[in-house]
Amino acid sequence: MARPVRKKDDAGNEAMVKHVSLNLNVRGLPVSATLGINERCAALRHHGRRIYRLGLGQSPFPVPTPVVKALKLYASEKDYLPVKGLRALRGAVASFHREKDQVDVKPECVLVGPGSKELMFLLQLVFYGDIIVPTPCWVSYTPQARILGRTVHLIHTTFERRWRITPDQLEDHLAGERDAYKPRILVLNYPGNPEGGEYAEGDLKRLARIAAKYELIVLSDEIYGQLNYDGAHVSMARYYPEGTIISSGLSKWCGAGGWRLGTFAFPKELGWLLESMASVASETYTSVCAPIQYAAVRAFRGGIAIERYLWHARRILRTLGDWCRERLTRAGVRIQQPQGGFYLFLDFSPLADSLAARGIRTSDALCERLLEDTGVAILPGRAFERPPQELSARLAFVDFDGCRALAASETIPLDAPLPERFIQEQCADVIRAVDKLSEWLGTRP
Amino acid sequence: MARPVRKKDDAGNEAMVKHVSLNLNVRGLPVSATLGINERCAALRHHGRRIYRLGLGQSPFPVPTPVVKALKLYASEKDYLPVKGLRALRGAVASFHREKDQVDVKPECVLVGPGSKELMFLLQLVFYGDIIVPTPCWVSYTPQARILGRTVHLIHTTFERRWRITPDQLEDHLAGERDAYKPRILVLNYPGNPEGGEYAEGDLKRLARIAAKYELIVLSDEIYGQLNYDGAHVSMARYYPEGTIISSGLSKWCGAGGWRLGTFAFPKELGWLLESMASVASETYTSVCAPIQYAAVRAFRGGIAIERYLWHARRILRTLGDWCRERLTRAGVRIQQPQGGFYLFLDFSPLADSLAARGIRTSDALCERLLEDTGVAILPGRAFERPPQELSARLAFVDFDGCRALAASETIPLDAPLPERFIQEQCADVIRAVDKLSEWLGTRP
Repeated sequence: MARPVRKKDDAGNEAMVKHVSLNLNVRGLPVSATLGINERCAALRHHGRRIYRLGLGQSPFPVPTPVVKALKLYASEKDYLPVKGLRALRGAVASFHREKDQVDVKPECVLVGPGSKELMFLLQLVFYGDIIVPTPCWVSYTPQARILGRTVHLIHTTFERRWRITPDQLEDHLAGERDAYKPRILVLNYPGNPEGGEYAEGDLKRLARIAAKYELIVLSDEIYGQLNYDGAHVSMARYYPEGTIISSGLSKWCGAGGWRLGTFAFPKELGWLLESMASVASETYTSVCAPIQYAAVRAFRGGIAIERYLWHARRILRTLGDWCRERLTRAGVRIQQPQGGFYLFLDFSPLADSLAARGIRTSDALCERLLEDTGVAILPGRAFERPPQELSARLAFVDFDGCRALAASETIPLDAPLPERFIQEQCADVIRAVDKLSEWLGTRP
Repeated sequence: MARPVRKKDDAGNEAMVKHVSLNLNVRGLPVSATLGINERCAALRHHGRRIYRLGLGQSPFPVPTPVVKALKLYASEKDYLPVKGLRALRGAVASFHREKDQVDVKPECVLVGPGSKELMFLLQLVFYGDIIVPTPCWVSYTPQARILGRTVHLIHTTFERRWRITPDQLEDHLAGERDAYKPRILVLNYPGNPEGGEYAEGDLKRLARIAAKYELIVLSDEIYGQLNYDGAHVSMARYYPEGTIISSGLSKWCGAGGWRLGTFAFPKELGWLLESMASVASETYTSVCAPIQYAAVRAFRGGIAIERYLWHARRILRTLGDWCRERLTRAGVRIQQPQGGFYLFLDFSPLADSLAARGIRTSDALCERLLEDTGVAILPGRAFERPPQELSARLAFVDFDGCRALAASETIPLDAPLPERFIQEQCADVIRAVDKLSEWLGTRP
């Protein structure tokens, strides 16, 4: 409510710089951590620094050729499309989930948005309730809640339990609340960002029973589902269909992060959420870019060309992820085996003493010093809602030319493993960065 | 906080249909009126009705060829672009405003979003203050404020004052508030939706002085600026540069509504709003679709091909708008001369008695009956925040093949007026719809 007070700026111009009138929920809000590291790396490179970009989680692979061709074909489409999405696209997304996940998704239960992040924001905007988030978690769930003034319940998971929320943890949390039926959304993300972990089927079933008992809405973020290395992703919606929203999109498995297309698949029972989100969508982003939606139909319809692309992408990611994990494990870092996606969550706690001797006592300090000393950019565990003093970080093993790597992988039969030479040649910068990180860890104080 | 109560739905399935937990600001929120009419018309057509679509305000013209070509060229761009927009695009937008509007916009003061509607929503989200909206106004300013729980002050304008807020009206409103320096955004939209009016330079200057005195932020929605029929649009930012945000985008002058790209140009003094909006953007839509941003650079750079496109588009719109206005004026409707864009705001008050005799006493009833009786879809004045009993409506004269009309216009020298035969041939459906509307008005009760 403060009156903006004018003062002279450096150039002597009057400027309303002193007092601003900002929503307190957004005042001081920084740019998203993952996008921030991207822009920081670009600036450092601009100044001539050699930077290894293991910060931003962007797919290294190109958009599959048939999908790019479809975008060219539909480049002149200019009409406003329906708010919920192009009819053909909603159908293709529904079929995709029916085939890939064996979940009975209806076309009319699909909502298309400009990125699944935007859809999650709308979900939190229209839903009146709390949000439960196991950590380490993707960087945007909780800032969204803060912008909207919603209450976040963080549940910290452990290395020993593969950074997965256990059914007991969930039940304890829920049973401990005074209002057992308070409206709540539970976020599950698997394969997970930042740790690459899936949920075991047994755990999914037990979590589903608890969710049903307390009538939770599960926001099941499965955007990395198609990057499960075994092609064996299992959705929570198999076991809790009536309360699970499956979140997906083109950003990860289809390499099209910059295209901005995300999808939510609702159960019929949660149609009221879909309708309300669509109403807000019609007053905000209106609908998703028309040419992109036409191209996305091609992507979700899939077919052999896209399956081959996925097989090769998974083989490369698995081989590279395993190599990085082994190398860093030898250097003393604790890391769980990734099962999908392109991240490792690094636990440096065994090295805490030697890091402390170098003045490093927080994940922020660790990543800052690493970037300064070696040019290797990774993101601190704090960005993933881990305690600031925990020495953890996310490494995204994506700084390589995915186009060239796919072409090279296609010369090697799919039933054979990729030789170590392959990643040494194709992913040389990631290898070099991981070597640098390992050596940096071994540095004497 | 209600516990969702499960009950059986028609198919005998358990469903959480009875109690939902929705944000009260969005509960009952309908889909945006303009998008709603679009979807309603599509449904009616689907059932075989002949519908004249003068409801949705979508440009009838195609995206200019060089811009479509650019989209094809950049179809494989897949990286997440910077939150605020591609550097080259921000530069092109700044140059566009410098050249077209003679306003000194800096590239670093440009924000690119997925439609100017989304940017307006973010502005209202981050800004903590009230919003002042002259009516009739575009359909989304006030629903956005309601979603966000902001206070809206409507100021009703009159036919006699060309549906423009007068400096006296603004001053009276501001002087009448207890807290003269309460943070406030004033929305100005010119050429206006729904009435096609510009502001006279003298009025802009007087409004600017008042805005400066009360330190208002002016959201200057100039998305139809390039569709001023004389190519003579004048921006408020000429007279109140330190407090004016110019809103523009590709949707109207570039025919690319479905592409979803809007722009805000801030003064340096309002950098705090830009930064805060960018932070929220990074947690919501992330950035605008990459291939679209590359194509938009081409659009904002302009050049002779795009200028020719604009000349022809303006000539067609002016000729058609004038024809519709004359025809409807003869039928007893009061309409101000449009100066840009593709709308007429119809005031049926001289026909109030004969409409009342047919049971029509609100703008909703008027539009509903018209659609039923004739298949002509126009939007009621209520959607533009006019009093429900006022017999007013917006007619969008866009139901014609803009591609064919442009090609035909190119065979007629630009210094000649278009003959009436031209619009009879090229815009036959609009002509027929306006004839039907006129005849319907003459119908005896």
